[in-house]
Amino acid sequence: MQTASISQFDSRPAAKPAPSIEPLRALVANDMDAVNREIIARMASDVSLIPELASHLIAAGGKRIRPLLTLGAARLCGYGSDKHVLLAACVEFIHTATLLHDDVVDESDRRRGNATANVLWGNQPSVLVGDFLFTRAFQLMVETGSLEVLRILAGASSEIAEGEVLQLVIANDMTSGEAEYLKVIKAKTAALFAAACRVGAVIADRPLAEAQALDDFGHNLGIAFQLVDDALDYASDGATLGKNTGDDFREGKITLPVLLAFAKGNEAEKDFWRRVIERPEEQAEADWQQALAYMERHGAIQETLARARHYGQKAHQALGLFAPGAVRDAMAEAVDFAIERAL
Amino acid sequence: MQTASISQFDSRPAAKPAPSIEPLRALVANDMDAVNREIIARMASDVSLIPELASHLIAAGGKRIRPLLTLGAARLCGYGSDKHVLLAACVEFIHTATLLHDDVVDESDRRRGNATANVLWGNQPSVLVGDFLFTRAFQLMVETGSLEVLRILAGASSEIAEGEVLQLVIANDMTSGEAEYLKVIKAKTAALFAAACRVGAVIADRPLAEAQALDDFGHNLGIAFQLVDDALDYASDGATLGKNTGDDFREGKITLPVLLAFAKGNEAEKDFWRRVIERPEEQAEADWQQALAYMERHGAIQETLARARHYGQKAHQALGLFAPGAVRDAMAEAVDFAIERAL
Repeated sequence: MQTASISQFDSRPAAKPAPSIEPLRALVANDMDAVNREIIARMASDVSLIPELASHLIAAGGKRIRPLLTLGAARLCGYGSDKHVLLAACVEFIHTATLLHDDVVDESDRRRGNATANVLWGNQPSVLVGDFLFTRAFQLMVETGSLEVLRILAGASSEIAEGEVLQLVIANDMTSGEAEYLKVIKAKTAALFAAACRVGAVIADRPLAEAQALDDFGHNLGIAFQLVDDALDYASDGATLGKNTGDDFREGKITLPVLLAFAKGNEAEKDFWRRVIERPEEQAEADWQQALAYMERHGAIQETLARARHYGQKAHQALGLFAPGAVRDAMAEAVDFAIERAL
Repeated sequence: MQTASISQFDSRPAAKPAPSIEPLRALVANDMDAVNREIIARMASDVSLIPELASHLIAAGGKRIRPLLTLGAARLCGYGSDKHVLLAACVEFIHTATLLHDDVVDESDRRRGNATANVLWGNQPSVLVGDFLFTRAFQLMVETGSLEVLRILAGASSEIAEGEVLQLVIANDMTSGEAEYLKVIKAKTAALFAAACRVGAVIADRPLAEAQALDDFGHNLGIAFQLVDDALDYASDGATLGKNTGDDFREGKITLPVLLAFAKGNEAEKDFWRRVIERPEEQAEADWQQALAYMERHGAIQETLARARHYGQKAHQALGLFAPGAVRDAMAEAVDFAIERAL
């Protein structure tokens, strides 16, 4: 594990308690238990490799932020029945399916602190079990009986796949810019956050304005979340987040911290970035520390986090349509948590 | 390309003209043109790699037997609107998505006479474009506005994925038997044939009995189709079918011809099958001809084709519920075509 310089993250006043996702988790705790039961029930298959492989990733946890958002959105809309549980499980299945395929495509070896499924079982079952989870997600949607829910989640799934292909196309290509990067993270991350929130209003049969507000909320939160993730990849400790620090760097992935450091760098730095990103397989040991140093010199991480805060603000604004109260507060705090976890 | 002994296939009286899928194709020709336009329109994406890669496989043709069946089933049910076109395109997208993932999983290098997408573009885009096509399929389903259609096709998709995992689990395992083989082909092939036919009755709003009859028809046709495919892998010429003869053998795939030859073989033959199937990477040049000779000795191909005819008969019977006429005749002939293409 590389030790990263995290001093650049330490700029927040010490007094305020750190925002947390726990208030939201506490508010929907019973629902979330039902979601977890649903997830386990729906992974079942006579083909035992399927639940084995799927549960390796699902049991490893992760924050379950997407299903939490679906439950929170449904609660915010005053939904009183039980289909939001199916939807939340469905959203987590879509997410899990994309993680399985992501790890194959990125040849990742660690996720959530564990060896990835592709390392433990190989690429072949990871691809196929990903497919299986994805079909299960659609079966769950069908059970909600809402064509509008299906339209939204099928659209989001399609956008995710499109974003993943785009990310692959621009990988290692230092001529791609911020516009393309934003397109990628909107598609691969924000689309599912937006859909996860929006369906809460749809299932509760609320007016279009509320569905749209929750869509905006999720969309902006999703962008903020991914920006922070991309910043963390250049700073956090792999043991803490269960993600390898420097993964993006070693894969030559184009993320905002790289684009910012590149844009502000002199010619020698630009040459450095082209070399390490375009031919990541030729990276030397010292390149990682050099990359961190260039980022610090140009405040690339701070600038990435500032952008995340900007989107976080937009997410906060979108909540304005809803009545004040514990649920809205918890959803708002989830935004701050998504951003401040970097600090 | 290996030259295969095809003498064992030549047992049909010479007089009768070969059954053909052309009558069905002619009956739904206009609809099929609409399906092809829909397919091209729905592959579109700003991410140009998506239509490039998808059209490589889709343009290469193949028989489009699944969408033909959907169109035929809708016609048989007297359907008069245009949603069957969406459904047929959707069924072909599901099929294409599974082919893309199959070729990655099997490490295939040829399909429909061309190099596979995974060879031309690599595994990563093949996985992701497969995902994309799959999501597009669901978007098409949503547009039909029928939750029952979604239920059927989501269920079939899930069964396919489950079957693919099972196939992977029992690959190279000579202790797996006919029961497991049948389970695999029912899931990976018959499920989509059954769904492709059934949705024709659903979209036409016909009684459950007709939906069930078309389901039975497609299910049995699908099993017959796969049995013949598995027989052809040990006989046909790669240049004709666009599939490498001997692919299954080289991958150590357990198919019925192998299971039958193994069951009827003496101890030396059993040792041979265990060696070539369990450790296909150690196969020698002469093993392929040896395998063909053992199969011929025990009539393994003929027996596989006899089983296919048995399922074909069941498919014919399922059509009995429908009024006689050109459409029913064409659907019946499609069954015979699926079987007799082996001769």
